[in-house]
Parts: sequence; C-alpha cells; structure tokens
Amino acid sequence: MIESAAVIGLGLIGGSLARDLAAKGVHVFAGDRDEAAVRAAAEQGIARPLTWNEPVDVVVLAAPVVAARELPGELAGRMEGVRLITDVGSTKRSIVDAAEQLGIGDRFVGSHPLAGDHRSGWDASRTGLFVGAPVYLSPCRSTDADAVELARELWTMVGAVPEVMDAAEHDRRLAWTSHLPQAASTALSRALAAAGIARSDLGPGGRDVTRLAGSSPEVWADILADNADEVLPALDALEVEMRGLRQAVASGDRDRLRQFLASGREWHAQHP
Amino acid sequence: MIESAAVIGLGLIGGSLARDLAAKGVHVFAGDRDEAAVRAAAEQGIARPLTWNEPVDVVVLAAPVVAARELPGELAGRMEGVRLITDVGSTKRSIVDAAEQLGIGDRFVGSHPLAGDHRSGWDASRTGLFVGAPVYLSPCRSTDADAVELARELWTMVGAVPEVMDAAEHDRRLAWTSHLPQAASTALSRALAAAGIARSDLGPGGRDVTRLAGSSPEVWADILADNADEVLPALDALEVEMRGLRQAVASGDRDRLRQFLASGREWHAQHP
Repeated sequence: MIESAAVIGLGLIGGSLARDLAAKGVHVFAGDRDEAAVRAAAEQGIARPLTWNEPVDVVVLAAPVVAARELPGELAGRMEGVRLITDVGSTKRSIVDAAEQLGIGDRFVGSHPLAGDHRSGWDASRTGLFVGAPVYLSPCRSTDADAVELARELWTMVGAVPEVMDAAEHDRRLAWTSHLPQAASTALSRALAAAGIARSDLGPGGRDVTRLAGSSPEVWADILADNADEVLPALDALEVEMRGLRQAVASGDRDRLRQFLASGREWHAQHP
Repeated sequence: MIESAAVIGLGLIGGSLARDLAAKGVHVFAGDRDEAAVRAAAEQGIARPLTWNEPVDVVVLAAPVVAARELPGELAGRMEGVRLITDVGSTKRSIVDAAEQLGIGDRFVGSHPLAGDHRSGWDASRTGLFVGAPVYLSPCRSTDADAVELARELWTMVGAVPEVMDAAEHDRRLAWTSHLPQAASTALSRALAAAGIARSDLGPGGRDVTRLAGSSPEVWADILADNADEVLPALDALEVEMRGLRQAVASGDRDRLRQFLASGREWHAQHP
C-alpha cells in the first residue's frame, strides 16, 4: 500500500501524477527547480514541499531524462526506507543501468507512461492524464519483486495499464513507436519552414503530421541522444521508404504509386 | 444566383456538397458510377438522378482526379446553358489545361476545397463539411469574371472561404502543404509496418503522424503522379532534413539536436 510519495519534477507528467495521487489520499511531497510550481501545488492542497524529513514509500523522478539520471546519485543517501524508486523517462536502459550502479537497483523500477502531449510544465498538468494509458515498467536485474508490485500498484491507482518490459526491449520498441514519429514530424516541419510554408497553411491532415514538432526540444534532444543506437536504424528504414516513394513518383507509374500507398493504408486499416 | 446544380461523383466531397446545396434550396442532380449512392441521395430527398434533361446553372465534377479530367470531354456537349463548371480535385494545372483545350475554359473554374479526412464515399459525406474550410479557386486564362463570381457564390453558400489562386501557384503550394505531409505519413507507416509495429502500439502523437496513411491510395496515386514535378523537390527537401537529423543523432551532440528540434518547434509555435 502506498501512503506517501515524493514527486521530483512537477511538469506535465509529474504534476499530473501528483494531482492523481493526492486525489487518492496519498501524502504527496513535491520538489522542483521551479519554486513557483512547488508553491502552486502546495496552495492547491496537492503536495507539500519536499524536505526529506518525512519518510516516503515511493520516490518518482519526473524531471527530464538527463536530470533524472543525475538525480539518484545526489539523492541516494536520502533513499533509506523508500520501497520504490521510479522515473517517468522515455528511455529505460540508461536509467536502469545508473540505478544498478548506484546500488539502488533492488528498489528501482523504471516507468515510462505513454501519456501526455506536446505541452509541458505544471500548468499543463491535470487529473486523469493516465487513465487507460499504457505504462512500461523496466526493472533492474536486481529489483525485488515487491518493488515491481509496488510500481504496478502506483500506476494502477491513477488508472494506467502497466506492462513489464525489459529495458533493452523497451528502448528498441520505442525507437520505432515514438522516437521515429517524432523525428519524422520535426524533419517535415523544418522542410516546410524552409519552404516558407506556415503551419496555418496546412489542412487538418498536415496539422496532424506536424503536431509532434511542438514537443519540447530539451526533452527530445535527450531522448534521441540517449537512444541513438536504436534510433539510427529506424531513421534509415524511413529513408529507404522515402526513396521508394520518390522513385515511384518519379516513374509516373500510377499502379506502382497505388501499391505503395495501399500498403500504408492496409497497415493503417488494422487500427484505424 | 444558383438555382440548380449537377454533382457528378457522390463521394465525401461531392456527397457533402450535394447535401449542403440541397439544404440551401438548390435543385441538385446527382450522377455516380455507383448507382446505390445515387439511389440513396434520391431516397433521402437530397438529389434527383442526373439525366441532363433539365438545364443546370452549375456542374461540379467531384469524381477522383483522373476521372474528373476525363469527364469534361465526354460531357462537353451537354454543357450548353451551364454557367459554371468546376471540380473539387486536389491538383489544378491539369484540369484547368484540359478545360481550356476542350473549349469550356470561359466557364471553368477549378476548385480545391481543403476539407474532408481520410474517409471516403457517400457514407462518409455529411452536412457542414465545408464550414470554415478554405477553397482554392483556379480559373483558366479565358474564364469569364461571371464564372469566377459564381464559383465564389457556390462555396460561400456552403460556408467555405474561397480564395482565387493561379493553378500553377496552387500546385506548387499544395505539393508542400498537402502532398508532402501525405508522403511522409505513408512512408513512415510503411517503415513501421516493415518493423513489425502495429499502429495500436503508437501513442497519440504517433497516431497523429500516421493518420494520413489511411487516405485513399487511388486518389493519392493520382494526385502524386499528376503533381510529380512539384512533389519531387518537396520530397528532396524532406530527405535533406531527415539526413540532417540523422547526422545530429549520430553525432551524440545534444546541443546540435536541441537546435534542430527547437527550429521545428519554433515553426509549430507560430500556429500551435
């Protein structure tokens, strides 16, 4: 049972988690470099400022990827009595390795909630963000079964759907399901910007394709750098497809173009 | 004033236009290879089957690009008394040229409504589809001013926002604003399909990026082939950006990645 939690980082994910946990009766303590966010959370009765004077069951590292990887070292001495340490980052190998090396691997389970949008910060946080959202849980090699169960409990409490996935498998998979779409959306946006096209010139479909370009450059630079070895093959695969399409367009062969487009549509039609 | 209109092609666009015009009291006559669609429109009191026995003010060619280009030849003899002939295709140079060559250029104004989604067919058509939607109007060199005014009136009646744009400028612009996003979405979908990723594995952002892959392969093969000379430079520009991103990822240089991503976000932020 989770009675108290420290949430470090009150952005979209951390802030929303703090709101939901507080609503479930969990005593939430919050830390953030941005003192205004901590003050706002306190004023709204969601979380008290984190002082580490009270013991907590769970610590959630909800700052951006790099910062989260740096945090455990700084905080390792304060983790006594903590039954679960988790994060909310979009890559899992590096933080799981860092936790193991810091000697907190027994209580560390990496979390990656597939929730949120291109907005960020405390002001974007809200209750119910995780309802129905998949959350990948990546334990360390040395993680206790109790800690994994507590991670499941944490996310289930806020309506999410946890699934345990090895960190390496997670990072390989997310390179395709998340990092590649982000890369494509950003690259397309840059091409349009260079051509003098405004986003308001696009139809609804074009706005969909470029929506992810609004994501945080700080967060995404960290993700793409952190997962570079898995992202590069995905980028290469997209380049192969772009070339195939270019050749089909250049050929003027409508049947070939139709086949190319039809295979994309078939894939879409399986989950429209 | 528009009292009667023939709509040829009862798909998403033609069907929706027929519904809206009928709701405004216009006598609508409808033709479609699919007799069931014509029957459905008649049964719902939206349009009578087109026989060409009644004179009409306006003829709307709402069949796919290639078919629309073939239609005027077949129908040129029936266009007596018609004050405006228009289409709804996504490219404009080829149909405007064809209309000029057929000798109906004086009454022809190409239309391209930026409305609809990846769905298609009469069943997807609905009232109000064009409310607030931009519609590009591309006259021929010989088009009468009256025909242009009638085209404005037609689209304004159904709530759209017409804008006159030269056919060449239209096709250049749409290569970027519409055809390139479609190409990127389809290429990404094919890359994901080849990697064994299902669309249901994606988060909301990834689903946004791949939504256009559900577009009609028939319609889009025609569009991309018809506008190949403008689409190819746009594809090349996207490839340049993809390569730039690949290099930034491979470099492991977070500042470089951040700058790349930040420029995409700046563009997005102008019209979020």
